[in-house]
Amino acid sequence: MIILKLGGSVITDKNSLTAKLDFDNLNRIAVEISNYLKSYDSKLIIIHGAGSFGHPPAKKYKIGEKFNLSNYQKKRIGFSQTQLAVKTLNSQVLNVLIKNNIPAVSIQTSSILTTNNKRIDSFNIDLVNKYLDEGYVPVLYGDVAIDKSLKMAVVSGDQIITYLGKYLNPDKIILASDVDGVYNKNPKTNSDAKLFKCLSSLKDLEQFDSTTNIDVTGGMIGKIRELLELSKEGVDSFVINANTKNNIFNILNDDEVNGTLITNKCNK
Amino acid sequence: MIILKLGGSVITDKNSLTAKLDFDNLNRIAVEISNYLKSYDSKLIIIHGAGSFGHPPAKKYKIGEKFNLSNYQKKRIGFSQTQLAVKTLNSQVLNVLIKNNIPAVSIQTSSILTTNNKRIDSFNIDLVNKYLDEGYVPVLYGDVAIDKSLKMAVVSGDQIITYLGKYLNPDKIILASDVDGVYNKNPKTNSDAKLFKCLSSLKDLEQFDSTTNIDVTGGMIGKIRELLELSKEGVDSFVINANTKNNIFNILNDDEVNGTLITNKCNK
Repeated sequence: MIILKLGGSVITDKNSLTAKLDFDNLNRIAVEISNYLKSYDSKLIIIHGAGSFGHPPAKKYKIGEKFNLSNYQKKRIGFSQTQLAVKTLNSQVLNVLIKNNIPAVSIQTSSILTTNNKRIDSFNIDLVNKYLDEGYVPVLYGDVAIDKSLKMAVVSGDQIITYLGKYLNPDKIILASDVDGVYNKNPKTNSDAKLFKCLSSLKDLEQFDSTTNIDVTGGMIGKIRELLELSKEGVDSFVINANTKNNIFNILNDDEVNGTLITNKCNK
Repeated sequence: MIILKLGGSVITDKNSLTAKLDFDNLNRIAVEISNYLKSYDSKLIIIHGAGSFGHPPAKKYKIGEKFNLSNYQKKRIGFSQTQLAVKTLNSQVLNVLIKNNIPAVSIQTSSILTTNNKRIDSFNIDLVNKYLDEGYVPVLYGDVAIDKSLKMAVVSGDQIITYLGKYLNPDKIILASDVDGVYNKNPKTNSDAKLFKCLSSLKDLEQFDSTTNIDVTGGMIGKIRELLELSKEGVDSFVINANTKNNIFNILNDDEVNGTLITNKCNK
């Protein structure tokens, strides 16, 4: 079984002022997934980010920040609006997948998951397994969640990956982003940025340019730390560029792709 | 706590050839719900039908009928399409509710429920309760489901009501339909149709005109049978006409409304 994460930056138009799907990119990716599934009877879970749909309302209503309970009603409306926004993206993603003959089934993350202080606290994945067993491609996504300490929080697609990676023991995890992999600096603004071909320990992370870590990676280090933890249990992850044609098909198909492998055993 | 069912005929345009929301009707109903919630701090669950969104794909792909497993892939696509169609309706409903300041949270039924031979087999309602406790209005809906014997089935809003009525012990159940209540004949085609003011036993059902039962009621008798079972446990149900202005507000508000009461104790 493979877990494929489609980053929000890959499937939505970040330059648009309003929530907008990057239809062309998503459709091309859907064709690649469909071609892979046609040839191989493999199980696949897709997780997508919230992109330009979820971030604006989550930011506007400060979902995940502490608040005074006298403002709870207003916050609830913000929660509802954010849930609806990411659900709208999810419907658009499902529409493209299904049109490409992928038997994709939406699993609304906020219907099966709660968090505690922004971390997944309970996650009922019974139906994720059932849909997989029946040959569907379950599609989960970054969503809002009821939070035990903060009342409400945002749960990222990345957290979902790590959780499913731990409990479903996939053959591999693919993180489809809009850059070629994990760099020591932001490759979009630093021409000397170095791509890591393979990461196998927290020590590798020391090569990150500490001054640019935060804006470069948007929490990339935390993500890699979690994927390194997973790699200790034998689950390898690949960070690849989904904007490069055939990358998704090739990585699904076990062909070589330029990118970063996160594993327990780099060949150095 | 109150459970309100909005029939598909109330919130979608049945005369439209394509899936179409009855925006005006839904918006008026949302205003009435919002006005009620403003005045009373009551818990509310909304369940809506699939109407002109769900029935065409479910019918096209014969969801819920036995099929040859060699056709499973085609059926899966039908399942996916039907799920997406009802989810689209659900998003449109949520949009109207939230715009009217109702803290509505969608709960995707097919993410938490399975059936066996078209009847609910498992239903994880933990999060329904959690959202209720946090002051949200959970919104569930008629959806597709994985079925233990038939592989896939349709689960109606009515089945969801009966299940939640049994396990959540609501103060009352409201079925908002497009007629004034339960009649012995189809009131739209029979000028002499008689409205039942109160139903308290299966014996009352003998007054139904047996020749017109099926097309009249679309399974109304089965539904009433289940609601009668619930009434034995003290949960009363009201069938009312949601197309009549203020009916929803009045029934939520415990004011008298023309309709059919299904209860253990009719005053005869």
